[in-house]
Amino acid sequence: MRAYDIIFKKRNNKKLTQKEILFLINGYANNEIADYQMSAFLMAVYFSGLDDDELFYLTEAMAKSGKILNLNSLKTTADKHSTGGVGDGTSLVVAPITASCGIYVPMMSGRALGHTGGTLDKLESIPGFNVNLDINSFIDLLKKNKAALIGQTKEIAPVDKKMYALRDVTATVESIPLICASIMSKKIAEGAKHIILDVKFGNGAFIENYDDAKKLAEKMVNIGKMFKRKMTAILSDMNTPLGNAIGNSLEVIQAVEVLKGNIKNDFYQLCIELSSLMIYSSGAAKDKETAKKLAEKQIVSGKALKKFRQIIESQNGNSKVIDDYSLFGQSKNILAVKSEKSGFVNSMNARNFGIASCMLGAGRLKKEDAVDHAAGITLNKKTGDFVKSGETLAKIHFTNCENPDNIKKMIKLSYNISDVKPDKVNLFKDIIT
Amino acid sequence: MRAYDIIFKKRNNKKLTQKEILFLINGYANNEIADYQMSAFLMAVYFSGLDDDELFYLTEAMAKSGKILNLNSLKTTADKHSTGGVGDGTSLVVAPITASCGIYVPMMSGRALGHTGGTLDKLESIPGFNVNLDINSFIDLLKKNKAALIGQTKEIAPVDKKMYALRDVTATVESIPLICASIMSKKIAEGAKHIILDVKFGNGAFIENYDDAKKLAEKMVNIGKMFKRKMTAILSDMNTPLGNAIGNSLEVIQAVEVLKGNIKNDFYQLCIELSSLMIYSSGAAKDKETAKKLAEKQIVSGKALKKFRQIIESQNGNSKVIDDYSLFGQSKNILAVKSEKSGFVNSMNARNFGIASCMLGAGRLKKEDAVDHAAGITLNKKTGDFVKSGETLAKIHFTNCENPDNIKKMIKLSYNISDVKPDKVNLFKDIIT
Repeated sequence: MRAYDIIFKKRNNKKLTQKEILFLINGYANNEIADYQMSAFLMAVYFSGLDDDELFYLTEAMAKSGKILNLNSLKTTADKHSTGGVGDGTSLVVAPITASCGIYVPMMSGRALGHTGGTLDKLESIPGFNVNLDINSFIDLLKKNKAALIGQTKEIAPVDKKMYALRDVTATVESIPLICASIMSKKIAEGAKHIILDVKFGNGAFIENYDDAKKLAEKMVNIGKMFKRKMTAILSDMNTPLGNAIGNSLEVIQAVEVLKGNIKNDFYQLCIELSSLMIYSSGAAKDKETAKKLAEKQIVSGKALKKFRQIIESQNGNSKVIDDYSLFGQSKNILAVKSEKSGFVNSMNARNFGIASCMLGAGRLKKEDAVDHAAGITLNKKTGDFVKSGETLAKIHFTNCENPDNIKKMIKLSYNISDVKPDKVNLFKDIIT
Repeated sequence: MRAYDIIFKKRNNKKLTQKEILFLINGYANNEIADYQMSAFLMAVYFSGLDDDELFYLTEAMAKSGKILNLNSLKTTADKHSTGGVGDGTSLVVAPITASCGIYVPMMSGRALGHTGGTLDKLESIPGFNVNLDINSFIDLLKKNKAALIGQTKEIAPVDKKMYALRDVTATVESIPLICASIMSKKIAEGAKHIILDVKFGNGAFIENYDDAKKLAEKMVNIGKMFKRKMTAILSDMNTPLGNAIGNSLEVIQAVEVLKGNIKNDFYQLCIELSSLMIYSSGAAKDKETAKKLAEKQIVSGKALKKFRQIIESQNGNSKVIDDYSLFGQSKNILAVKSEKSGFVNSMNARNFGIASCMLGAGRLKKEDAVDHAAGITLNKKTGDFVKSGETLAKIHFTNCENPDNIKKMIKLSYNISDVKPDKVNLFKDIIT
């Protein structure tokens, strides 16, 4: 078997066999197949696509490039994955809610990159919080607390990391089958039985187009089922930043406020929705409505907050931040962005808010960049709100920023304000199971 | 400017600028752009194509990666290039004919690869013949003899060599714009004013499909004109091996026989056609008919043979081979392939004859392989001929061959013999100027 023939076949839009895909992925993982052959293959996949069988073989080969966690000894395991958005700190709320319902929640998360945030960076804004646990400590903690939140260990689908780095420099990221295989190979390796996917669409999502996002959601659900996982995908709107905070500690504070029952914004709604899908999928509630009530109850009763406290303490974080937000790192500057006219916020460019937050120090342009955990944006006004001229739209939080006036201008321009009140946006557009 | 953005743009079927193409090609030539980015780009070109402007910029950038010969001091320069076939030793006849008409013929040729032969290997079957001249010696010889036949020097479009090696292992060879840029960048760099292209189609050609071959011919003619070259392309049929000899010295002997006026087969016809196109393009005859008569006259008068003798001697070859074919290396074995039935040769699989010749030692599977100059196949019967059961179809010539019976069988199976006499095939299907 030769890599050449596999590239040639896919280039000619022919179906690859399991053996061929395994040969290619294993060869690439073992450095026997060169980057230049893999990148040509990836570009051929970009154009020719992969059918369901091929996608299953690819996902399986990628998952098996590392360790596949066996969590069968745990009664019910459920995981949530988001395709990435702006202000999307839902894991911080969803994990405590569902774990407090008795579901085991093994979460391996990512870091901020580009305009999107990352759960690990948010967690690390809590002083002392350790996301770098090895697999054994992760499983021990999971058994003890029913939830553990760590970074992906190097044992999980290692070839995906190598492939992603290559895709990143060869313009082959934006391929639905390749995105699907990348996400699902990791989710399969991470071992949870129930997988809830939050697939975002809109100007703040990686996949802006709704139909493409839906196609990705369908493919992921389908592939997951082929691995005998119980799958649920929700398509959620990312045309507006989620919630009222963008940035690491700012989002943790918002999550704590939600867990305390003090906030009921769209971020809260998505947290409840995702939690109830996990609860329902896991069989901890007989229907979705009951699942939703159970999720809400975990907040009202304080059980979810208690669970979050437990998670923080078990991972060496200072849980006193829950009671005293001044224990988070603080930004030296907080400046208001004020509206120059009165009217309704008709729409927002969510991506620009992500980029602005990144430029304030909260995110990364390159993987190597350091993150300012306190920096970010808080939103006083969102789509649908009325704003008066001179009123504050948002606040920027930063310590080091070369030209904050430019960021303020960018944010101002990312609000579309007009006389017409916009129609209410549905946060969730579809659910695929 | 980043290679990523150029790949991305081409992947999205957007038109590239001259600057972008130059950046990519120069960066690759200087090892600043990695193989894996170039291979992704080449695959994107395979799918998205290049328009005429982009193809011009690519060809120009590739040609300018090395030296562009200036042959303006020579009155009329003409070159011929074939896209490669089986039994195609036309350069050995065309160069002497046209040079003897007063046209300067600077020829840089290639080597055998896969099922196709190469002019350099054929010339090297003449004891002593030196194809490895540097550019200055090449031009001196050209001025003196009006013809010089050498291998491509490393100064000619060096980035093409690097790109071709990459295409060869990434399944990006079969792209019409990439084939066009590869051929034309070298032809432009080699400096001839008149370029005659022999674009083959059929089962023995690299591009089997006639329409694709025609598209390539049209693109090459168009690009050549953009470089102010006078272009002629002929589309010639390669469903049957050309002439009656396949293999290096076997083809040289056939060429000498043609130059002596002893053979008038299809190989002779193509030589006369190509020569007359070069003569007509160069203005050495007022119309094609006159050009054809002039070409034929060079053979009848012995002037072409004399020119070939001069070329051989000037490049240190033993010209006595012209009078005594036993001075060529000799195969130890010559075995007849006999027909098992009577009938007309309805068709032949030209590619298989090329492969069989290669397996007998005449060609190369890999660039590093050595070539047996004496090995090959002589054809007693060709498409349209009647053969009686037991009569010889062809002969295989070899010294080292592990299983000659298999080769005989392969050749036998590559003749389709039936009761029906096939229609006469037109060797030339179209001419594009």
